[in-house]
Amino acid sequence: MPGHSGPSRRTLCMLGALGFVSGRQAFAQSDPLTSWNDSAPKLAILDFVARVTQEGGPDFVAPAQRIAVFDNDGTLWAEQPMYFQEAFVFDRIKTLAASHPDWRETQPFMAVIEEDREALAAAGEKGLLDLLAATHAGMTTDAFAATVAEWLQSARDPRFGQPYDRLVYQPQLELLAYLRANGFKTFIVSGGGVEFMRVFAERAYGIPPEQVVGSSGLVNFRLLADGKPELVKQPKVEFVDDGPGKPVGINRFIGRRPILAFGNSDGDQQMLEWTGAGSAPRLAALLHHTDAEREWAYDRASHVGKLDKALEEARLRGWTVVDMKRDWKRVFAFEPKGAL
Amino acid sequence: MPGHSGPSRRTLCMLGALGFVSGRQAFAQSDPLTSWNDSAPKLAILDFVARVTQEGGPDFVAPAQRIAVFDNDGTLWAEQPMYFQEAFVFDRIKTLAASHPDWRETQPFMAVIEEDREALAAAGEKGLLDLLAATHAGMTTDAFAATVAEWLQSARDPRFGQPYDRLVYQPQLELLAYLRANGFKTFIVSGGGVEFMRVFAERAYGIPPEQVVGSSGLVNFRLLADGKPELVKQPKVEFVDDGPGKPVGINRFIGRRPILAFGNSDGDQQMLEWTGAGSAPRLAALLHHTDAEREWAYDRASHVGKLDKALEEARLRGWTVVDMKRDWKRVFAFEPKGAL
Repeated sequence: MPGHSGPSRRTLCMLGALGFVSGRQAFAQSDPLTSWNDSAPKLAILDFVARVTQEGGPDFVAPAQRIAVFDNDGTLWAEQPMYFQEAFVFDRIKTLAASHPDWRETQPFMAVIEEDREALAAAGEKGLLDLLAATHAGMTTDAFAATVAEWLQSARDPRFGQPYDRLVYQPQLELLAYLRANGFKTFIVSGGGVEFMRVFAERAYGIPPEQVVGSSGLVNFRLLADGKPELVKQPKVEFVDDGPGKPVGINRFIGRRPILAFGNSDGDQQMLEWTGAGSAPRLAALLHHTDAEREWAYDRASHVGKLDKALEEARLRGWTVVDMKRDWKRVFAFEPKGAL
Repeated sequence: MPGHSGPSRRTLCMLGALGFVSGRQAFAQSDPLTSWNDSAPKLAILDFVARVTQEGGPDFVAPAQRIAVFDNDGTLWAEQPMYFQEAFVFDRIKTLAASHPDWRETQPFMAVIEEDREALAAAGEKGLLDLLAATHAGMTTDAFAATVAEWLQSARDPRFGQPYDRLVYQPQLELLAYLRANGFKTFIVSGGGVEFMRVFAERAYGIPPEQVVGSSGLVNFRLLADGKPELVKQPKVEFVDDGPGKPVGINRFIGRRPILAFGNSDGDQQMLEWTGAGSAPRLAALLHHTDAEREWAYDRASHVGKLDKALEEARLRGWTVVDMKRDWKRVFAFEPKGAL
C-alpha cells in the first residue's frame, strides 16, 4: 500500500492490533449491545469497559490483562430441560445400543434406552460414570470430536426444534464481540467437557479451542505399529472444572486473574469470588433465568443450573445480576415459531 | 486521527491485527533471523513460513491454525549445568534452612545445604518430591510467583554471571517474533513447572501466561474467614508435561495440533511426532547443543536434556536438526565477558 507509510499509519495499526481503534469504533458507532435493554446491567457493562480501556484513566487495565471468563451452560447457551452434553450422551447411548444388545438388560444403559428417569437417578454417580465411559472414552480425540460435530448437525432440542448450538444467547454473543473489540481476550470456563465444547465454541462464540477451559478425562498418547501417534480418551475423570474447580482451572489454564467473570449458577460462585477479589477494577455478573416465556425460569430449586447460594453472595458482594426477562430485549438469534 | 479514515486504512489495520502487514514488512525488510546463519535450518524455516502464509497457495494455513509450540529448557533458554528451576529449588532450600534447623540433619535437605551431589542422587525421586514440597507448596500461587520473581532478580548463573532469564537464546527470540509477525500464536510446552515459567515468559519471550503449558502441582481453592479467596499450592504432583505428556498437554491446553514444534531432547520426541503427523504442512525441529565454547555441548550421555532416541527419530522422520555451532551466528543477547 504505497503512499500510506509513515509513523502515524504504523501507530494506527498497532492500536488496531491491540483493539483500541476498533474499540473506539464500537463506541462511536451505534449501540454495541442491541439485544440488551438499557437497564442497569448494560449500563454497568458499558461503564466498566469504558473505564478499563481509557488510557491514562485511574481504572485503565493493559490489554494483556483484560481477561474475561464466561461459564457456558446457562450463561452462553441454554441448559434446559437438561445439559446439552447430557442430551448428547443419551442420544449416543441409544445409537450405540444397536451394537450392544446387552445394554437392553443392563443399568444404567437400560434406563437411558427406556427413558426411565427414576432408574437413571437410582444409578447415581456410578451410573453417570458408566455412561460417560461408554460415550466419551475408548476412542481417539479426533474420533470423539467428529462424533460431537455429527450430533450437533443432526440433533434438535425438544422445545424449539433447533440444533443445540443455535440455542446460544444473542445478547451474550454481542457482549463477547464487544469485549473482544475492546481488547479483551474471552475464555469459556465451564463444568462441561472441554473436548465437547471445543467442537463448536469457535464457530458459535468466536472462542478458539485454546481459550476453552473445562472438565476433562484422562487422555493417553500411543504410537501405532506404523509409527502414527494417537491420543486416546480413557474412562477416567481427571479434572472437574466446577465450583472451587473453576478458579483452579483459571489458574491452571489462563494463569492470571480475570477482570470480568460471568456465570449463572452456584457452580460459578467461586469463579466470581476469585475474579472479584482482584485489585484492578472487576466486573462479576450472574445471569438469572427469569423468563419462562422466551426461555426458562428457574433458580433455587432447579436440578440443572441451581442458583441459590450464589444469588445471596451476589447481594453481599455487589455482583451484577442480569434478569433475563427484564434486561434482555431478545434471547436467541432465531425467531421461535408458534406459541411456547 | 482525522483525515486518515476510509476503507483502505481499515483493511490495513485488520491485516495488521492479523499479522499480515508486519509479516510482509518482515519479509520486505532485511533478514528477520539475523542471529541465524544462512544454512539449511534457517532456509527451512523461512520456506515453511512463506508457504503456510501464502494466501491461495497449496500449503496455506489459516491464521487460527498457526500454532507453534516450543519446549523451554534447552530450547528457549539454557539448561546447564542444571535445570534453572532446580537451581531455584536449591537456592530456596538454602534460604529457608535458616528457619528449619532440623534440615541440617535431614536428607535430602542436608545434601542440598552441603552441596553433596552424591547424597542428593541417593535420595532419588522421593528426595526430589520432598524438595519440591518444601519450595513449591504450602503457599498461595501469588506468594510463589513473588518468590520466583525475587529469585530471578537476585540469582546469577555460575558460568556467565548473568540473571538466569538473560540466558535465553537470541536466535529463538527472533524466531518467536518472526512467527508472531506472520500470524502464529506461540506457546511454551515444557516439562518445567507452569507457575515457575509464567513469572518470566511474558517478559523474556513475549509469551503470555495463558500460552504457557507445563507440569503442575495440585492447587486448592479456599475462602478465608474474611471472605477473601485464595489458591494454595499443595505438595502433590498433578501433571507431568514431559515425553508422552507433551502431546497430552497440547491437547488439554491448546486443543488443536500445532503446525510447528521445536524441542531439544528426548522429552520432546512425542510432541514432535504428534506435530509432524498432522495433515497440514508441519515443521518439527530439534536444537542440538554442539557448542561447548559459546554454550554447552551435550546429547546422548547428558543428565539434563538427554538427546538420544529423538536424534534417531529426527533422521527417520526428516525433522530439522539445528546444530547450534553451525547454524547460530550468536547464542545469547549479552556479550560473554572474558574467556569461557
